[in-house]
Amino acid sequence: MRAAVAGASGYAGGELLRLLLGHPHLEIGALTAGASAGSRLGDHQPHLPQLADRVLTPTTPETLAGHDVVFLALPHGQSHALAEQLGDTLVIDCGADFRLTDPAAWERFYGGAHPGTWPYGLPELPGARATLSGARRIAVPGCYPTAATLALMPAFAAGLAMPDVVVVAASGTSGAGRALKPNLLASEVMGSASAYGVGGVHRHTPEMEQNLSAVAGWPVTVSFTPLLVPMSRGILATCTAPAAPGVTAETLREAYETAVKDEPFLRLLPEGQWPATSMTLGANTAVLQVAFDPAAGRVVAVIAIDNLTKGTAGGAIQSANIALGLPEETGLPHIGVAP
Amino acid sequence: MRAAVAGASGYAGGELLRLLLGHPHLEIGALTAGASAGSRLGDHQPHLPQLADRVLTPTTPETLAGHDVVFLALPHGQSHALAEQLGDTLVIDCGADFRLTDPAAWERFYGGAHPGTWPYGLPELPGARATLSGARRIAVPGCYPTAATLALMPAFAAGLAMPDVVVVAASGTSGAGRALKPNLLASEVMGSASAYGVGGVHRHTPEMEQNLSAVAGWPVTVSFTPLLVPMSRGILATCTAPAAPGVTAETLREAYETAVKDEPFLRLLPEGQWPATSMTLGANTAVLQVAFDPAAGRVVAVIAIDNLTKGTAGGAIQSANIALGLPEETGLPHIGVAP
Amino acid sequence: MRAAVAGASGYAGGELLRLLLGHPHLEIGALTAGASAGSRLGDHQPHLPQLADRVLTPTTPETLAGHDVVFLALPHGQSHALAEQLGDTLVIDCGADFRLTDPAAWERFYGGAHPGTWPYGLPELPGARATLSGARRIAVPGCYPTAATLALMPAFAAGLAMPDVVVVAASGTSGAGRALKPNLLASEVMGSASAYGVGGVHRHTPEMEQNLSAVAGWPVTVSFTPLLVPMSRGILATCTAPAAPGVTAETLREAYETAVKDEPFLRLLPEGQWPATSMTLGANTAVLQVAFDPAAGRVVAVIAIDNLTKGTAGGAIQSANIALGLPEETGLPHIGVAP
Amino acid sequence: MRAAVAGASGYAGGELLRLLLGHPHLEIGALTAGASAGSRLGDHQPHLPQLADRVLTPTTPETLAGHDVVFLALPHGQSHALAEQLGDTLVIDCGADFRLTDPAAWERFYGGAHPGTWPYGLPELPGARATLSGARRIAVPGCYPTAATLALMPAFAAGLAMPDVVVVAASGTSGAGRALKPNLLASEVMGSASAYGVGGVHRHTPEMEQNLSAVAGWPVTVSFTPLLVPMSRGILATCTAPAAPGVTAETLREAYETAVKDEPFLRLLPEGQWPATSMTLGANTAVLQVAFDPAAGRVVAVIAIDNLTKGTAGGAIQSANIALGLPEETGLPHIGVAP
Repeated sequence: MRAAVAGASGYAGGELLRLLLGHPHLEIGALTAGASAGSRLGDHQPHLPQLADRVLTPTTPETLAGHDVVFLALPHGQSHALAEQLGDTLVIDCGADFRLTDPAAWERFYGGAHPGTWPYGLPELPGARATLSGARRIAVPGCYPTAATLALMPAFAAGLAMPDVVVVAASGTSGAGRALKPNLLASEVMGSASAYGVGGVHRHTPEMEQNLSAVAGWPVTVSFTPLLVPMSRGILATCTAPAAPGVTAETLREAYETAVKDEPFLRLLPEGQWPATSMTLGANTAVLQVAFDPAAGRVVAVIAIDNLTKGTAGGAIQSANIALGLPEETGLPHIGVAP
Repeated sequence: MRAAVAGASGYAGGELLRLLLGHPHLEIGALTAGASAGSRLGDHQPHLPQLADRVLTPTTPETLAGHDVVFLALPHGQSHALAEQLGDTLVIDCGADFRLTDPAAWERFYGGAHPGTWPYGLPELPGARATLSGARRIAVPGCYPTAATLALMPAFAAGLAMPDVVVVAASGTSGAGRALKPNLLASEVMGSASAYGVGGVHRHTPEMEQNLSAVAGWPVTVSFTPLLVPMSRGILATCTAPAAPGVTAETLREAYETAVKDEPFLRLLPEGQWPATSMTLGANTAVLQVAFDPAAGRVVAVIAIDNLTKGTAGGAIQSANIALGLPEETGLPHIGVAP
Repeated sequence: MRAAVAGASGYAGGELLRLLLGHPHLEIGALTAGASAGSRLGDHQPHLPQLADRVLTPTTPETLAGHDVVFLALPHGQSHALAEQLGDTLVIDCGADFRLTDPAAWERFYGGAHPGTWPYGLPELPGARATLSGARRIAVPGCYPTAATLALMPAFAAGLAMPDVVVVAASGTSGAGRALKPNLLASEVMGSASAYGVGGVHRHTPEMEQNLSAVAGWPVTVSFTPLLVPMSRGILATCTAPAAPGVTAETLREAYETAVKDEPFLRLLPEGQWPATSMTLGANTAVLQVAFDPAAGRVVAVIAIDNLTKGTAGGAIQSANIALGLPEETGLPHIGVAP
Repeated sequence: MRAAVAGASGYAGGELLRLLLGHPHLEIGALTAGASAGSRLGDHQPHLPQLADRVLTPTTPETLAGHDVVFLALPHGQSHALAEQLGDTLVIDCGADFRLTDPAAWERFYGGAHPGTWPYGLPELPGARATLSGARRIAVPGCYPTAATLALMPAFAAGLAMPDVVVVAASGTSGAGRALKPNLLASEVMGSASAYGVGGVHRHTPEMEQNLSAVAGWPVTVSFTPLLVPMSRGILATCTAPAAPGVTAETLREAYETAVKDEPFLRLLPEGQWPATSMTLGANTAVLQVAFDPAAGRVVAVIAIDNLTKGTAGGAIQSANIALGLPEETGLPHIGVAP
């Protein structure tokens, strides 16, 4: 089967290619780009020697036609028009366009008309695998919502957490893409931690609420604060919710053990060990730990993912595997690169 | 006036010396250490050329006697015995021994008998300056409690926040001191964010609760999660509390503007700009911003401090200035080193 | 075939395990350690979930017996006694004990009696593959000598460079191992570049001279300066030698193109692109570029390797593959993890 | 006296302002910028609270008129026209336009007509202070030439080194300014060391040769390789030259001790300690060490400076002090910020 990658010069595109080069059933087809069309891939992704001499073609329906799966790693808003012309090819959109189910949330956070809703590519959500199996369109979750949802899903699914969720997530800079903005310059980032999008205005907020509300069965609000910290990759999310009455450390741990038991990419650490993003750098795993704070009356779950792998490209391929009928873990690393 | 620094080979000791070298009224006297006694200061603090050839003496009541002020930057538990033999010299303890007022909290978080309570060296707290003026013993706050207290104090003082506080604070590694532990090795820290002391077990939790409860007038619980991120200095704390009924963005901002108005070291950023630790690296300022999240119903305050300056050594000198009757800002930088 | 790893709790040991987990023909057998024996591997290598619950056994001839290959990732000086009791098992020593051929150089740089010389595991050296094929003992090169040798070998082999080599190599901290030394603490390393072992005293100097002299056919001296820079992995070596008379940019490039042509792990960048360690993080490749500086009359070669992969564990497995009659590239990644 | 800063929104401009805020005799006047004119300084230099509300004016002769000293921190090529209209105001140019004495070198490395030569602002060079005293135009040295010249000047001045210099210098990213280029993005820089401008093409090469030739008394060639390493500030330069016949470790050390004896900003470390950029972060000092490598027959000097302080803005103010008849050290810190 052949896979095209649109947006191959960016960070998400590069990670898709890194993983596809190790995928036994997906051959790399078209590599397309916007402004970088015409240049060598090696100018943008020098860590991928096998593809260095491939020349990027423009992102058009024509260049993307004729593949079994098309991965879109494009700026928000470009997927809709492209996907309409890709027929029943499997299209995996790493952008935000088709994640939200609520048009009002879309308008409030993104503006403009709601482009629609595609099957949501977080296989670990209840019922998701059935929906993704055989799907022709998949919306890959945002990196922060992937982290926050996986961190608190076990607690909400087991009825151990209540609304009023607080999520504070520290991210590496690659989550912002290869954007030429002053605040992403190395000189500004190294040696400094900063906050942005504070106060409920980050676009990933409604996506977290959508996921956790679905799991909980009633509306969950999320106070979400993203942080930029001096590392290239990784998200470490601290996710906390009031504990339901009667929760104990034991019931909480049991709920998490049950939740991860059959999940190939969820990993609950032994008690006493806490997640670090280096545990999963370059891997598709989400590393979890949870505590019950009886004094504060809160469940505190901490999760580490690689924002480019499980948080974007790895998650995309995981869902593509399901849609294509391949074993879900195909081509996806469980091992991080450390130290 | 002459100042002694006990624990001069550590990070807090080095920062005390860096600041004291620029202090017009405090001359540097004895420099003492534990295991490093007998070695040159230049082996430990090579950024302080003026003191490079000074030899460290052992930390004893004798070496510390005869100074106008003694700064203790020692491992927890060593201040008590020393201070008892320092008569009515001004003693500023950067350790935890005398911060907590509640013996039960001391026993739960530190163990052993409660050493007592000294005047608490956070001048920005209501009434603190009167207590510190002329004091002979001062307990310097912990770095995280400094951040969390200053971040939420304006909201609680104005009655705009309610209990159930959540604090997630990202810290650079110098906060852990020059301790030879594997998790503090550069190879483990660089490129990685991690959590530790999760679930209400970090020793700074009761100190935050003590401060915020005093400001609020009723008991405030804090769910506190510290993070280690790849930078040497700085704390970026995200501090959130449920908003009191009727809070608006305007009332909240007004409360913060009022709170910082006459404070020399509190700095509220203009609306739309968010704190980064690089704004205050090496400076004694606390950089603040606040938002009201109406959907989540929470106040979200973000604060950046330099953990070694305002969070430890700068805060210590600020309180010493007050106790000694000097202008509070003497010798304390307002300007950070950036980028 | 089964492989044992002695020193499994260290960085080199961890990298051996990361690679062996992806090796189709080598099964992981005994995992041994010194002071860490008895603990879970997951406490030391949390990025390797498959092995997390394996318990480390003591490093003894008994625990290492019965394997097809034993990888030693031990402190210098421990390999000799162990290897003597491992019969004709293939032993791959990542330490320095058996690298040098000259007893006088050994005594000057390491002290004590020369332990001997094993076949040197740098397959790219002329004639090395024939020696390594079927070998029972292999000394893995040091990380810096791997870099410097591969960088200048093409120039010396083609007669385009003359003695008086200068090598300045910037290394990440993992090259120093998981050693609890103050200068390896994150607080000291982040934001700082430093030099060490300056003036011809670093132990890798005679190894570089040995390799380059063998390639050149006459004695080559090396002025070597290692730098510590704020990153976990990677070596970037700038290696320069006087150009032989008549050298041009074209003859130089041709020599390098010829040298890398059939080498699976040497990669010469296109003209105008210069190596960065991020191009090869986690990969077994060495990324090269070369320039002729006519004004200074020098050849300047720059090389990037991952010190733990091509510089240690990957190089070890590459040589093991040759010794065991497996295809040389088996289990060794060509793709880096970036950004 | 009043000082204007042209280019106040950049990194060099910010560092000038940071230092001027602590300068007792220079008051800050006009703050000018190019594309950023009209914006608040606080948007660009948030670490300088005192100036946050100052609005940037356009860089024109009019806005810069009427000051006692004008510091130009502009892109190359803009100083010439401006300076012509600033009469006999003291103009300190942090750019390259007036550094080179040789028009041929200018044309080869910068292109276009040679703008001329101003007194060269490296006070430590023989005879420089006399030239700078009372000067009305000063060209601030490049950051790399500052490092390389100070490192090898003592050896060449004492006749202990011979030509064929090799300089490899690792720099933090702030040396490249606040330029929006992909290779300066945090995601690309963190975790990676890279080389650029290799093979004698970096524009700082002729400046190093000019300085060292002047000191040596005969032509010195320099093979210069700059490296980009993951830190914001700092240059660590390894500078090596063949030793003259008869050199010993003792004669070499004596030459360096003599050279630094009366220099307020040169600091020779005790034997056995090697420079790290963290020793001088934010300070105007250059930290030096030297070794004689008898086997390689080379002198190896290592130097650490802060590229923005001694390497640019601090050096500029040091020269301005001399030109204005102020004590040379006025307003210039000797103490670094560490860790």
